[in-house]
Amino acid sequence: MNSPCFKVAAFILVLLSGAFLPCRAQSTMDDSLQLKKIFNEILVHGNAYRNLDELSSQIGARLSGSPQAAKSVEWTAKKMKEAGADTVWLQEVMVPHWVRGEKEKGIIIRMDGKKQSIPTCALGMSVSTPSEGITAEVVEVHDFEELKKMGQEKIKGKIVFYNHPFDQRFVNTFDAYGEAGKYRYIGASEAARYGAVASIVRSLSSSDNDYPHTGSQRYLDSVPKIPCAAISTNGANLLGGILKSEPKTKFFLKQSCQLLDSVLSYNVVGEMRGSEYPREIVLAGGHLDSWDLAQGATDDGAGVVQCIEIVRALKALQIKPKRSVRIVAFMNEENGLAGGRKYAELAMKNKEQHIAAMESDAGATTPCGFGLNMSDDKKSKIRSWNNLFLPYNIWDWSWGEDGADISFLTDGQKVPGIGLQVDSQNYFELHHAATDTFEQVNKRELHLGAAAMASLVYLLATYGL
Amino acid sequence: MNSPCFKVAAFILVLLSGAFLPCRAQSTMDDSLQLKKIFNEILVHGNAYRNLDELSSQIGARLSGSPQAAKSVEWTAKKMKEAGADTVWLQEVMVPHWVRGEKEKGIIIRMDGKKQSIPTCALGMSVSTPSEGITAEVVEVHDFEELKKMGQEKIKGKIVFYNHPFDQRFVNTFDAYGEAGKYRYIGASEAARYGAVASIVRSLSSSDNDYPHTGSQRYLDSVPKIPCAAISTNGANLLGGILKSEPKTKFFLKQSCQLLDSVLSYNVVGEMRGSEYPREIVLAGGHLDSWDLAQGATDDGAGVVQCIEIVRALKALQIKPKRSVRIVAFMNEENGLAGGRKYAELAMKNKEQHIAAMESDAGATTPCGFGLNMSDDKKSKIRSWNNLFLPYNIWDWSWGEDGADISFLTDGQKVPGIGLQVDSQNYFELHHAATDTFEQVNKRELHLGAAAMASLVYLLATYGL
Repeated sequence: MNSPCFKVAAFILVLLSGAFLPCRAQSTMDDSLQLKKIFNEILVHGNAYRNLDELSSQIGARLSGSPQAAKSVEWTAKKMKEAGADTVWLQEVMVPHWVRGEKEKGIIIRMDGKKQSIPTCALGMSVSTPSEGITAEVVEVHDFEELKKMGQEKIKGKIVFYNHPFDQRFVNTFDAYGEAGKYRYIGASEAARYGAVASIVRSLSSSDNDYPHTGSQRYLDSVPKIPCAAISTNGANLLGGILKSEPKTKFFLKQSCQLLDSVLSYNVVGEMRGSEYPREIVLAGGHLDSWDLAQGATDDGAGVVQCIEIVRALKALQIKPKRSVRIVAFMNEENGLAGGRKYAELAMKNKEQHIAAMESDAGATTPCGFGLNMSDDKKSKIRSWNNLFLPYNIWDWSWGEDGADISFLTDGQKVPGIGLQVDSQNYFELHHAATDTFEQVNKRELHLGAAAMASLVYLLATYGL
Repeated sequence: MNSPCFKVAAFILVLLSGAFLPCRAQSTMDDSLQLKKIFNEILVHGNAYRNLDELSSQIGARLSGSPQAAKSVEWTAKKMKEAGADTVWLQEVMVPHWVRGEKEKGIIIRMDGKKQSIPTCALGMSVSTPSEGITAEVVEVHDFEELKKMGQEKIKGKIVFYNHPFDQRFVNTFDAYGEAGKYRYIGASEAARYGAVASIVRSLSSSDNDYPHTGSQRYLDSVPKIPCAAISTNGANLLGGILKSEPKTKFFLKQSCQLLDSVLSYNVVGEMRGSEYPREIVLAGGHLDSWDLAQGATDDGAGVVQCIEIVRALKALQIKPKRSVRIVAFMNEENGLAGGRKYAELAMKNKEQHIAAMESDAGATTPCGFGLNMSDDKKSKIRSWNNLFLPYNIWDWSWGEDGADISFLTDGQKVPGIGLQVDSQNYFELHHAATDTFEQVNKRELHLGAAAMASLVYLLATYGL
């Protein structure tokens, strides 16, 4: 489930590209002191944690199009100015406005008629059920192959239940998420092909718990749009167990979510102008919108406040970046990516020169490395800084992921893409669920992530890429 | 605050000792598969999390000499047998029996007579106050130098308040703990030298919060034993702030703790007998006792259940270790280390041959490496296994710590000592406080630690050291 050879090879490359090059010794010593200053400043005086408290506890859930999302745009612009950005501006972007409506109902109806309610939530962008709900027999499948084998004969008129567990064998939980994610993302339309009337999916969570985890899903145009929901992992275990001995078990699903007219919203952009090469931009971003079930503290309030902290720390240390440092709070990552798309479109139109784009959207825990999505020679240049980061336990440069919002810039390696990598073990306990709250975030972990980003931004702004 | 050069040098050593030695290629490939099996077994079927729930939620706090400590001895012996140890035995050890008594009272008495209660707890092994409590003026010091400068003239008859903050600049929080720990450990006696009537210490916590953190302290024989307590970090901030403008502020301390007669208790030992070299022992341990304020889930229920898990996993995978694998749940780490001392004494008396001793007592979070306390050639041998661990994000072999219980075996490198190293960022939020509960532990993180230990135990039992 791992790729040990790859990781070992990457490790050796890191060493060869950095440790044995004496010509870098002088600048490395200065840079080492500079990074120490950056880490100390953020660990001792960092403001990201307090900002995250405001954003997640006071403003709260910020689904695109919601009043809270609008409020968070204003808040972020204000915070970027206070942090010391030379200029702060908003980029207009139309975003979908999906609303959950009343709290969903998901009830198992056993063969003897007994009913059992389980934690259920509509998946993002799902259609509603009729107002009286849908009641139908449940067909459990573990993967698309099983679905296909059953075919229309066994599925028509029923509710398809995707009970694909999170594979615990993956060491990085994002790999397990990636593997299981398709049942949430395209499960409804795949089930609709065979005449299903609704679909429910086991929550993409790494543990057995009572929280349903929402998330985006996409309907295909070619098949009817059926209501789709996530049920908690404990609920999925219960339903799966019952189905073993009671194959005619039914499920009642009721949800009143709907997609309203699109709404004008904004990306928030702040910039410290470069002192020597102002046209060359180093971007660091996170996304401002969150799912509606939680505070969106780790996904991705953390990324936003870390980016603001980069500017605050550089200002506090009177570091004037040679290249422009631009921080971006993207709108609408969760259900549309309209903000990321708009940013790249404007960058192209305005012929902006991004030398690197970095995103923090993998959680607020202890950083351990950076994902690099770029050409091999650029990877080598970044990895040559490995030894500067080792004292902060930043050691892993083997990941390839950067971030969804910046993907419109970095796809095809047009712009070198970088993703902050953090400890992933706890992330999918919180992800898209009511558990993603400020209380789950540790101040030092959040600040170490901000310091790691600020350090890499500093090096990129100093040396280019 | 770091030692970058050391870490970088250690890194290069790791690579040179392992990655470039083709002669190890064959066994490494087999070992790589074996480690994959061990990690998969524990991540998918691991029982440590369930065991920790029983030990911490059902048995609870287990201070030496308490009924819960006695109960935990029975529980551990049973669990070791169930896990598949060939033999399980108890080692008798006399332990101190200190009891906290009634809940402590700590009250700031301002110069206008207003009172403000702050979270306070007696330090372990402290004497009680008189039953009416102690009321005296507070003298704040930040370190021993300041204390010495004040001298008897300013200190006599007063309560010394050690307000030495946790230094956030340390990346590994154990370094900050190590630096600040002396004010808790010997602060009372140092204050008593100058005639103080009691001492209070800022809790050794990495954040500002409302929990007092207890912990051991030691009286010198040469000075009077004065009552000593910890106050919460928020309480310390408050008191420190008030003292700036109201230097004659008083403090009321009342505690009824006492040291009773020593009690017979036990280390619990389980063993899988080695198939080829049964006399050579690989030890893995944790400590069973905990402070009385919390469940002791991370300190150190985690270590105990991880050791039990090593045996369970090896048995489940039908791995017969060539050398004997011995797991030990030590008693009385927190306030006396009697268990560790007794174990080493018996090992010496019985002429047992320990080839390595490992301890997990640094928390239940994601593992990142092992501390190595041994000769350089033995370090090199262990580090030659680095590449086997990289797929599991175990990368750091630069730490030198092993564990307090095993220190009687490993001091002076008599027996090579190894300490499981885990993410330290959150540890001192929980340490010795009411916050150290089962709910704070993540199943995957706990199990990754167990798998890392089981893997290293497997390699040591196979190849020796």
